[in-house]
Amino acid sequence: MTVIIINPNSTESMTAAMVPVAEAAAPALEFQGWTSHAGPPAIQGAEDGAAAAPHLLDLVKKADQSGAEGVIVGCFDDTALTDATAQSSCPVVGIGQAGMHLCALRQWRFSVVTTLAVSVPVIEENVHHYGLTAHLGRVRASDIPVLALEEDPDAAIQTIIDEARLAVAEDGAQSIILGCAGMATLTSRVRSAVPVPIIDPVEAAAKSMLWLT
Amino acid sequence: MTVIIINPNSTESMTAAMVPVAEAAAPALEFQGWTSHAGPPAIQGAEDGAAAAPHLLDLVKKADQSGAEGVIVGCFDDTALTDATAQSSCPVVGIGQAGMHLCALRQWRFSVVTTLAVSVPVIEENVHHYGLTAHLGRVRASDIPVLALEEDPDAAIQTIIDEARLAVAEDGAQSIILGCAGMATLTSRVRSAVPVPIIDPVEAAAKSMLWLT
Amino acid sequence: MTVIIINPNSTESMTAAMVPVAEAAAPALEFQGWTSHAGPPAIQGAEDGAAAAPHLLDLVKKADQSGAEGVIVGCFDDTALTDATAQSSCPVVGIGQAGMHLCALRQWRFSVVTTLAVSVPVIEENVHHYGLTAHLGRVRASDIPVLALEEDPDAAIQTIIDEARLAVAEDGAQSIILGCAGMATLTSRVRSAVPVPIIDPVEAAAKSMLWLT
Amino acid sequence: MTVIIINPNSTESMTAAMVPVAEAAAPALEFQGWTSHAGPPAIQGAEDGAAAAPHLLDLVKKADQSGAEGVIVGCFDDTALTDATAQSSCPVVGIGQAGMHLCALRQWRFSVVTTLAVSVPVIEENVHHYGLTAHLGRVRASDIPVLALEEDPDAAIQTIIDEARLAVAEDGAQSIILGCAGMATLTSRVRSAVPVPIIDPVEAAAKSMLWLT
Amino acid sequence: MTVIIINPNSTESMTAAMVPVAEAAAPALEFQGWTSHAGPPAIQGAEDGAAAAPHLLDLVKKADQSGAEGVIVGCFDDTALTDATAQSSCPVVGIGQAGMHLCALRQWRFSVVTTLAVSVPVIEENVHHYGLTAHLGRVRASDIPVLALEEDPDAAIQTIIDEARLAVAEDGAQSIILGCAGMATLTSRVRSAVPVPIIDPVEAAAKSMLWLT
Amino acid sequence: MTVIIINPNSTESMTAAMVPVAEAAAPALEFQGWTSHAGPPAIQGAEDGAAAAPHLLDLVKKADQSGAEGVIVGCFDDTALTDATAQSSCPVVGIGQAGMHLCALRQWRFSVVTTLAVSVPVIEENVHHYGLTAHLGRVRASDIPVLALEEDPDAAIQTIIDEARLAVAEDGAQSIILGCAGMATLTSRVRSAVPVPIIDPVEAAAKSMLWLT
Repeated sequence: MTVIIINPNSTESMTAAMVPVAEAAAPALEFQGWTSHAGPPAIQGAEDGAAAAPHLLDLVKKADQSGAEGVIVGCFDDTALTDATAQSSCPVVGIGQAGMHLCALRQWRFSVVTTLAVSVPVIEENVHHYGLTAHLGRVRASDIPVLALEEDPDAAIQTIIDEARLAVAEDGAQSIILGCAGMATLTSRVRSAVPVPIIDPVEAAAKSMLWLT
Repeated sequence: MTVIIINPNSTESMTAAMVPVAEAAAPALEFQGWTSHAGPPAIQGAEDGAAAAPHLLDLVKKADQSGAEGVIVGCFDDTALTDATAQSSCPVVGIGQAGMHLCALRQWRFSVVTTLAVSVPVIEENVHHYGLTAHLGRVRASDIPVLALEEDPDAAIQTIIDEARLAVAEDGAQSIILGCAGMATLTSRVRSAVPVPIIDPVEAAAKSMLWLT
Repeated sequence: MTVIIINPNSTESMTAAMVPVAEAAAPALEFQGWTSHAGPPAIQGAEDGAAAAPHLLDLVKKADQSGAEGVIVGCFDDTALTDATAQSSCPVVGIGQAGMHLCALRQWRFSVVTTLAVSVPVIEENVHHYGLTAHLGRVRASDIPVLALEEDPDAAIQTIIDEARLAVAEDGAQSIILGCAGMATLTSRVRSAVPVPIIDPVEAAAKSMLWLT
Repeated sequence: MTVIIINPNSTESMTAAMVPVAEAAAPALEFQGWTSHAGPPAIQGAEDGAAAAPHLLDLVKKADQSGAEGVIVGCFDDTALTDATAQSSCPVVGIGQAGMHLCALRQWRFSVVTTLAVSVPVIEENVHHYGLTAHLGRVRASDIPVLALEEDPDAAIQTIIDEARLAVAEDGAQSIILGCAGMATLTSRVRSAVPVPIIDPVEAAAKSMLWLT
Repeated sequence: MTVIIINPNSTESMTAAMVPVAEAAAPALEFQGWTSHAGPPAIQGAEDGAAAAPHLLDLVKKADQSGAEGVIVGCFDDTALTDATAQSSCPVVGIGQAGMHLCALRQWRFSVVTTLAVSVPVIEENVHHYGLTAHLGRVRASDIPVLALEEDPDAAIQTIIDEARLAVAEDGAQSIILGCAGMATLTSRVRSAVPVPIIDPVEAAAKSMLWLT
Repeated sequence: MTVIIINPNSTESMTAAMVPVAEAAAPALEFQGWTSHAGPPAIQGAEDGAAAAPHLLDLVKKADQSGAEGVIVGCFDDTALTDATAQSSCPVVGIGQAGMHLCALRQWRFSVVTTLAVSVPVIEENVHHYGLTAHLGRVRASDIPVLALEEDPDAAIQTIIDEARLAVAEDGAQSIILGCAGMATLTSRVRSAVPVPIIDPVEAAAKSMLWLT
């Protein structure tokens, strides 16, 4: 049986980057990556999320009906997650949801380092909706677009590390969640540079499937 | 310019019933009713809502691009409302949202009388999500399926009146919201029988367009 | 039938400025402006609000008993609104309440640009009381006293525009509410300068009467 | 120096009953009872509260300006408390507020036994407004009007005891607050009959003045 | 490496019952059961929890220092969990916390069926503290003492099944959490009789360790 | 009868400093100071709090059983307060809890000036847990360690005054709570320098015993 990671944006390289992260995190499970080709190339803000939703919901339905053991929505905004869950018989987890609940279970105050400012209200609303507001330090934009993470991770890494350090110093964050699926390739470098637990949301979602399935 | 009422379920007679209610409530506006033929025949619970969402979002996009002045999502569950709003340039209002905010603006405690128990958690979550929990008496199921309202309103009316009276007596409700688009034909009879304001959500949504446009 | 705008402060010129804004926003309604001559000259902070409350409540009662179709409390602090509503048979709306609920219905995150810092806790408590905390960016003081807006609007305009732009940049605000009745004369200039919807609370309250009456 | 208990309703006998309760609870303080003769004879529901507010605020101002050490608003609905506090330099406490905060400080879950159902939403909103929702079992109406407590306390006592016992059994209440100033004469009898702490709100407010002054 | 399940009560048979449930749920992990011999024989209500806390915290410290991979607090009240977590370097999970977060991740509304009424406020406060109030149907007491579950499970089973069915019918519960470590031996029988997911909190905590470690 | 102030840290000089502050605040009561010799020398952050908890709970039990009229937990973090209360028959109050509830009763927005950043999340969680979030300006770290307050108060005083002034200017604070038991010796100097009420939490807790006992 298989867990399907569905990337609601159309950028195949992001899907391809998520699968090995999941496999390394939960070797007992099998993962497949699906890309929503009809989605926008990146999901930045509520408008992109709405554009991505119908195509994503179609893929979730297809995954559920194909007998998937679980589905991971591979965007930190947890695109269309309520509807995706409601229409499925298998567990459906969003990578943002998984990262945040992991911190809540550990009773850590967390800050999120994400991409553009336009995503901040979406993520904050999710924190609120999940009931985890009391755990939140701050959602911080790094001002790096999603696709720039893909194209030139080296340029992005220092900005993300700086923002994570500020989160520790200013927000009292006891952990940092990397707030974009596209940051998975940077996780180990951020971990080396910042002295609190760094949550990779793809890892968190992959391992949560060990719990939920 | 025109306001488009989109019924996310496929039952044309429900769409047809909503339009004159809206026209009577807001004669200064022009209304059209669209039916989501690919949706389920009725939306009862989160699973139906998820099934209806992609088709509804397609119609909302079409309405917005056609130059509609506003869009009303004609299901009390406010199906896919967050995404519908995010993807649109014109105002998009859900009939549940409109009814609840009207009561909040008036500072009334409200109870909702809806159809089946399966809809109660969906509506309660919406109340919570809109921030209006402090205004809520209770969401009450009448155990009348959506389509039974259409087929035999006379059989349903007494049950709905009884539930509304209980809401006044037990919940301290200062107003009652009829929690289904299909109840629009019953509004005047409930108003005659229950001595607090009875909110018809289609009326509330239609008039809210005078505010928002 | 008529909607009465009651200015709880004693500055007649502010009352006079509100009426045409309301008339332009809702031409289908008739508006009258009443001034609470026994109130303080401006309402800045909770202490002024308490001083204004009894006189305001007297005027609201007089308006309701005179057969007014609706009453608008013309101070952004929504002075004594709960009591004003409870004692009235007609709809009573505060201009702060109307502006905030309008943004909530549109699902916009809003920031407020108001006058002095002493008003910030009053407005924040109102946001919290209405259940709209999740929609709030920030309440921002411009450090311009209420009456200075009246006396020298040209001196004030740039400060307000600057604060509104900061709200967009720093708070992720998707809309800005002008947080003082006395800003109504500046609305069009702020709208020209700031690229998100600018909510004039007098307009919002006036149009809400189309919904509530 | 003196603490002034202001009864916002016009029933002098209720004022007269409160003063000795306060004196017995806090012998180190001096108490005076003032009656708001322009208020309604009893405050039952939000409408009565609004009618009482302006007269009450006048008396609070007079008390504060006379050099009172503190003011107690002697109605369980905490009539106009926010405004009364904002306009005063001395501490102003409501008897409902005092009773509820006392239970919160003791970390007790409390239920309230009050008079008519029309007061339930007012009290619940106060609990919510004070932030104490997590401490609340339930607000229970005994269906005894305020003035009936005065006129025939013997007839009322068993109903109140029964409701208090139900609160223990059904709500898990660890303490019961008597939710009307007019119940002060019944406190000892309820205490004899119900095996959890019974909070008399006049006592609680009187003793809180030892803390706040 | 090993996960230590610490039973904060002194009843060894309850510890012994938990270990095989955990082993079956997470065969990839090794579990040990420790009993807090200085604790009360059962934890029923806040007072028992407070009595159990210091001894439990000693054992958690010992477990953490012994190099445990994780610690499970084996009481549904999540005794002393905040302190237990704060003092440990390894993950510490409460069985109540794990069961509730599992339901939250699945986006299920849950009701809890626990033992005595005295535990209801403790559990409700935990739900509130974890931010999961919006997911809660109701916490239901079965009136079966903890040790009676141990001594005569057959007598208890029908009562628990009845309460679980009521939770589905009356609370709209989409899942039921068995609210006592001592119910683990009854799980399969409840699952056969009630048509929604039944969460065994020991299973949930054991599997959560696959996620957190 | 006597109120026992239990200092959960092992620094005797801090205990000795608290007793005269309490005696001056509530001369009608008798106070004793107990020191938890097995606790850490200072409580800075959640980890120290957890280390202090078992020893503190032992002392609270001893105090309660010795017939104390009340117990004050003498650390602003309100160490183990829920358990300390649950296990006691006499009132148990935390100095943080008392200071915050006093501000809430007065309807003041408060900011806290505490010692190190590591205490900020602990205090914020307490504010949230008590339901007083709407009253909070901000919890501000002065970056002065607890014991430095003891050793060189003169060096600390200006920093604390500066932070308190910032709280008034930036947070709209209407009162300032000194967020460490060790600040009691500085209270009068802060009061001279900052023009809003300065709450000494030891005073607030001592006087609250006049209310609760």
